[in-house]
Amino acid sequence: MPLLVMKFGGTSVADLDRIRNAARKVQREVDRGYDVIVIVSAMSGKTNELVGWVEQTQPMFDAREYDAVVSSGENVTAGLMALTLQEMGVPARSWQGWQVPINTTAAYSAARFVDIPRKNLDQKFAEGFKVAVVAGFQGVSPEGRITTLGRGGSDTTAVAFAAAFGAERCDIYTDVDGVYTTDPRITSKARKLPRIAFEEMLELASLGAKVLQTRSVELAMRYKVRLRVLSSFEETDENSGTLICDEDEIMESKVVNGVASSRDEAKITLVTVEDRPGISAAIFAPLADAGVNVDMIVQNISEKDYDDHPGSVTDMTFSVPINQVERAKRAMEEARQAGHIAYDELVVDTEVAKVSVVGIGMRSHAGVAARMFKALADENVNIKVIATSEIKISVLIDRKYMELAVQALHDAFELDKA
Amino acid sequence: MPLLVMKFGGTSVADLDRIRNAARKVQREVDRGYDVIVIVSAMSGKTNELVGWVEQTQPMFDAREYDAVVSSGENVTAGLMALTLQEMGVPARSWQGWQVPINTTAAYSAARFVDIPRKNLDQKFAEGFKVAVVAGFQGVSPEGRITTLGRGGSDTTAVAFAAAFGAERCDIYTDVDGVYTTDPRITSKARKLPRIAFEEMLELASLGAKVLQTRSVELAMRYKVRLRVLSSFEETDENSGTLICDEDEIMESKVVNGVASSRDEAKITLVTVEDRPGISAAIFAPLADAGVNVDMIVQNISEKDYDDHPGSVTDMTFSVPINQVERAKRAMEEARQAGHIAYDELVVDTEVAKVSVVGIGMRSHAGVAARMFKALADENVNIKVIATSEIKISVLIDRKYMELAVQALHDAFELDKA
Repeated sequence: MPLLVMKFGGTSVADLDRIRNAARKVQREVDRGYDVIVIVSAMSGKTNELVGWVEQTQPMFDAREYDAVVSSGENVTAGLMALTLQEMGVPARSWQGWQVPINTTAAYSAARFVDIPRKNLDQKFAEGFKVAVVAGFQGVSPEGRITTLGRGGSDTTAVAFAAAFGAERCDIYTDVDGVYTTDPRITSKARKLPRIAFEEMLELASLGAKVLQTRSVELAMRYKVRLRVLSSFEETDENSGTLICDEDEIMESKVVNGVASSRDEAKITLVTVEDRPGISAAIFAPLADAGVNVDMIVQNISEKDYDDHPGSVTDMTFSVPINQVERAKRAMEEARQAGHIAYDELVVDTEVAKVSVVGIGMRSHAGVAARMFKALADENVNIKVIATSEIKISVLIDRKYMELAVQALHDAFELDKA
Repeated sequence: MPLLVMKFGGTSVADLDRIRNAARKVQREVDRGYDVIVIVSAMSGKTNELVGWVEQTQPMFDAREYDAVVSSGENVTAGLMALTLQEMGVPARSWQGWQVPINTTAAYSAARFVDIPRKNLDQKFAEGFKVAVVAGFQGVSPEGRITTLGRGGSDTTAVAFAAAFGAERCDIYTDVDGVYTTDPRITSKARKLPRIAFEEMLELASLGAKVLQTRSVELAMRYKVRLRVLSSFEETDENSGTLICDEDEIMESKVVNGVASSRDEAKITLVTVEDRPGISAAIFAPLADAGVNVDMIVQNISEKDYDDHPGSVTDMTFSVPINQVERAKRAMEEARQAGHIAYDELVVDTEVAKVSVVGIGMRSHAGVAARMFKALADENVNIKVIATSEIKISVLIDRKYMELAVQALHDAFELDKA
């Protein structure tokens, strides 16, 4: 029997009416001949309520107890979904993480999958159950305690089940109807992509497109799980939404498929740093130790040579998430006081944004960077930092130009055209 | 290490402040040198919310899914209580039913205990944990699914743990400060009993005193678990509340220790029933089959012999819970139409109440019934039905006299005096 995984997020199961609406989508797939594994999140708001209680009780909470408490919302939805499906005449039952079992590491509140044995669910499918409703976001540790996967973990649960059970596809039902060429709130020319490659989705997810959790895309890419994002709130069919798949499944791809933007960036410059072998390590090791996620890095090519700085010196610029600026400053100050690094000044610019173009076509097409820089230059947008990967070019610019830059790039790469 | 079981009901853990208040009571017992097993209910209102969702989804719900959903409230409280205790410096962890495990039958939503192996909790106590916080009301079936014990089941969970772990005592913290000689809302002379025997508490509980679930008292009696009822909302010490214990622990007992009353009664009379061997079975078997809980039964001793009823005839009167009257009427009508019984008329009186006096001293004292009937006669209260057990006398009277009768009996047996 072909098998589908269908995942419904918090807004898709926010109340009994929405659960019924989701159940109808499951029923349709059963009617088409599929066995279905349904992964559910907690009703929207429930997990936040539980997290709030835990944090009020113990600010530095015991992650074991945190997991035991916050996992309960998914259990409620799983039971209600199973009841709703039964009421529609679909043989279904709910599964909590420990019942499957969903074996994870003991890294409470940030656990990772170890394995998902198929035996128990396969047995129920063989007995005639058509749907297994599984509580997302949770698992069980080797010592038999409940674990959670970190926020948004239900997407990852869905992909893990699709991989373990060889599902034909993993459908992620959510409150948007697919993946767009760019944020539709920035330009109405944004267009829904029928297909996108895993690598592109991964770049877009890590660049701040919130439609899928990065980890779930990584997992899907590793196990070649065909992932589809589609709307819970519209009528949907086989062609709805966006399919995230191997690039082999994408016949013709543009050079650039998406423009991403993020305003949660800050730029830090260390002015007049001694330019010697090992200086990068001396700067970035303490930042890593402090848990700062350094994103883009630029070392000025210009050399300075002042009287008070004999030898070669340079400026070092890097970007960090804006909420990590204080932590980064402290780490740099401490490294300077400990004598590990020397710099004249630390300059922070929080009025920046990151804009990126993403596309697997870049691998085989030259000139993408030039086209990008020209489009920005035509709008008089100054580029502060540049970073590239094989399928992505990112630039840091003044935040006030962010929307303008996105629109210019969307036009320049003709993303509004199919 | 001596061990205590402490149980906190829904109002005692209704919010984070109350959980903290309850945790302080636990901490005090730990400071006194006890290991403690804490049994918690769901925050008040939570279970009702979950039950409501299930019933809206599926009016005749699958009890397996019902149990999976409604058990989640206790898991939340257990985790929050463990976190609160940790924050106070008390080594504690939470346990869900399947983790202990609390093995029950597979009678979902009305499961019964099979056994509670001590191994897992004993190991944690040996490792230095002082408190095991256990989610009440739930267990796990032989097939590994979650079960619940029926409403109020957390009291029973507490007693079962006290029995399994040989606890010195099982303290039930609730919103009343003990067991009273009668309902204090009926007479201000009602007095808190320092001690009461299991058998008496069992009669009072089944007569409608809501302070403890009947099943928990039965279990306590069977395993000789010393049970104490006391207030969550007052300062309490070793002598607070009411101890429910073996009668051997009660030095001097009065003949009567409590007066109970219930207004949820109805009287049904079958007029002119054929009086023959087997007639009682013919009447009460269909009532039992229909799930009607018949309480008191009286067969009129007067014989009738009319022209149209040759042979011996009688009237049969019995009481049932008022919400089961329709079911009882239907069962009787069907039995009559099937030719199993014959009667002229079925008369229902819903304006009745039951008043009972309870005391283990009755076993060795004669004249209790006479004293009771005289007290009621002095107030011109007419008795409709009488039922007795070894330690209880119940009468059915007009409902409008209920409070009067309770006050008269409370005075007659001098229950206001210690």
